[in-house]
Amino acid sequence: MKFIHTADWHLGKLVHGLYMTEDQRYFLNKFVELVEEEKPDAVVIAGDLYDRSVPPTDAVELLNEILFRINVELKIPIVAIGGNHDSAERLSFGSSWYKQSQFYLSGKLEREIRPIQINGVNFYLAPYAEPGMVRHLLNNETIHTHQEAMKAMIGRIEDTLNPNEPNVFVGHAFVLGGKTSDSERTLSVGGSGCVGVELFEPFSYTALGHLHSPDSIKHPKVRYSGSLLKYSFSEAKQEKSISIIEMKDNGQFDLRIRSIAPKNDMREIEGHLDELMDPSFYEKQNVTDYLKIILHDEGALIDPINKLRQIYPNVLHLERKIAITDMKKKHSFSSAKEDKKSELELFKQFYEEMTTSEFTDEKKAVMTEVIEKTLKEEAKK
Amino acid sequence: MKFIHTADWHLGKLVHGLYMTEDQRYFLNKFVELVEEEKPDAVVIAGDLYDRSVPPTDAVELLNEILFRINVELKIPIVAIGGNHDSAERLSFGSSWYKQSQFYLSGKLEREIRPIQINGVNFYLAPYAEPGMVRHLLNNETIHTHQEAMKAMIGRIEDTLNPNEPNVFVGHAFVLGGKTSDSERTLSVGGSGCVGVELFEPFSYTALGHLHSPDSIKHPKVRYSGSLLKYSFSEAKQEKSISIIEMKDNGQFDLRIRSIAPKNDMREIEGHLDELMDPSFYEKQNVTDYLKIILHDEGALIDPINKLRQIYPNVLHLERKIAITDMKKKHSFSSAKEDKKSELELFKQFYEEMTTSEFTDEKKAVMTEVIEKTLKEEAKK
Repeated sequence: MKFIHTADWHLGKLVHGLYMTEDQRYFLNKFVELVEEEKPDAVVIAGDLYDRSVPPTDAVELLNEILFRINVELKIPIVAIGGNHDSAERLSFGSSWYKQSQFYLSGKLEREIRPIQINGVNFYLAPYAEPGMVRHLLNNETIHTHQEAMKAMIGRIEDTLNPNEPNVFVGHAFVLGGKTSDSERTLSVGGSGCVGVELFEPFSYTALGHLHSPDSIKHPKVRYSGSLLKYSFSEAKQEKSISIIEMKDNGQFDLRIRSIAPKNDMREIEGHLDELMDPSFYEKQNVTDYLKIILHDEGALIDPINKLRQIYPNVLHLERKIAITDMKKKHSFSSAKEDKKSELELFKQFYEEMTTSEFTDEKKAVMTEVIEKTLKEEAKK
Repeated sequence: MKFIHTADWHLGKLVHGLYMTEDQRYFLNKFVELVEEEKPDAVVIAGDLYDRSVPPTDAVELLNEILFRINVELKIPIVAIGGNHDSAERLSFGSSWYKQSQFYLSGKLEREIRPIQINGVNFYLAPYAEPGMVRHLLNNETIHTHQEAMKAMIGRIEDTLNPNEPNVFVGHAFVLGGKTSDSERTLSVGGSGCVGVELFEPFSYTALGHLHSPDSIKHPKVRYSGSLLKYSFSEAKQEKSISIIEMKDNGQFDLRIRSIAPKNDMREIEGHLDELMDPSFYEKQNVTDYLKIILHDEGALIDPINKLRQIYPNVLHLERKIAITDMKKKHSFSSAKEDKKSELELFKQFYEEMTTSEFTDEKKAVMTEVIEKTLKEEAKK
């Protein structure tokens, strides 16, 4: 039995003010091709289908289209749960109808998690829920943390689980020790929000969502698929992938990884402005990638982001990097000397840093007048 | 072939700041019972399922539950369209799956309106769309008004329609001359937003949504079902109803009307405060109804709304009614006389109107002091 494990699609995501929907559409079209090629028995999506509880309408249309193509056109069962970014209630709408074509969508955690059986494998669906919600659902006042909630939920599953069958847990949680990225929303204010990996021991495979890197944790049976795309620069060096699991009847499985090239990568480049603007540098690159650029230049630069955007239209973030030693040198040098500079000298230095034209005598005369007038007014106060 | 025509559910509606969801739940549970009893071949909902594009989650859950019971549990086909209050894109999510159990949901107008055939009757589904959207969809630059848009859409339907079969148009529009209520949102800013009733001539029956009164227009073949509940006091005197249509093979039909008593009615009562607070008056009434109360009392009343709410918890609106003649009399009387009253006399009158206690000599002494002090301060300015 073969299934694909994916999670954290975050449809409708904004990254640095830019909607990712077109990149997500491109990627998901490739994903549908991969699914068509692999012909799995199921596609598992472990939460965060949308980036927020009320996603933009084009994200709604995109999800509808992609799931329809996989489930109705390709006739492949889908197993999906809500994540902490999804609205449990909104996502749940219609799920009773979807079952009819083996699209199993669990938006809101249910008291009894009955397994979905697909080709001999039992899938246990546990959408994201706050501990308070689980406390209420199970009528168990001792539940206050994610660890306690998950333990209680899995305890109930264990009561009926047949350990001789292949059992897959599908959840959305933060496993203790997992590597985080900047685009995940913290699950718990105050508490850790973590759950121990040992809780998933009863299962042959645990398909998780929440952390965005596929190698967030190192565990033979408990895995994050990672997010669809890179959603923050902290993920720039991650290798996003699609996990393909071939589950055997005894619960052992083989894992295979495939990757899909995104329309635009998200990465960092650095150097001096002149270097980055040099065709010999940028012609070798996909200039429409989403970029964080770190400039090494010292001194003032005129509107560097717009210069860069003429070549790299998707610069999302620009930083300046000045070596600490240089900073110190410059600082000690200038603080000693600039204290002695006149207002006119200071302005001349500023003018020359900010423009490319000369600070002529004519300009000097105008500025002298302005400075003298200002100093006189200051003196009167 | 029998179908039920309903529209304008407006789930998630707020009336005077109060969510109607529990009243809607009560009513829709009764509606499901009626559907179960009538066993129609289809239930038609002609738009405005929700009150807004992003409805509250309990409204989403309610719609899901009610449609599931009708369509999946009772196995009755549903034909539904989006109205001007619905989000075309959000409502459309999942509609490809719903078809599998004969739940035909058209949230967003499509270029080709293909009929849904149910037991020999053709249903043409035209969800609400702005004229600009229809202009774009049909690539027809001459469309600028709702009339032009509807005419073009129906013109296209006519090209393939078989006039010898029973054809039902399901639309959401404002028919010229229709009676409006306060709870409908105007379709067009500037233009009329109206469509002529003659456009629907090709159809055996036109099931409309938008106007909230079942008798908004008088036409033998074109009808509004009216809204589920009264959603404004302008609807207080309307008789809300459920329309049951028995369609014959020749396109002629019989219409039957049934009504469901709401949990709480919406109505106006008026009288003097004492009368309305008298058990002999209110004991005969459903005191939890949503009320607009018009008080006939003259003079000041202390916090009348909270007094009334002790008996009538759902007072939504309170008005005072003073007969014009009395107003005039009082005004001419007082303006002549009050001009001559001293500050103390004016305050005594105010005090006696606002309280039930006497303006004693002690109180008079305190007030005299305050007035004198104030007048002295005024004189200094």
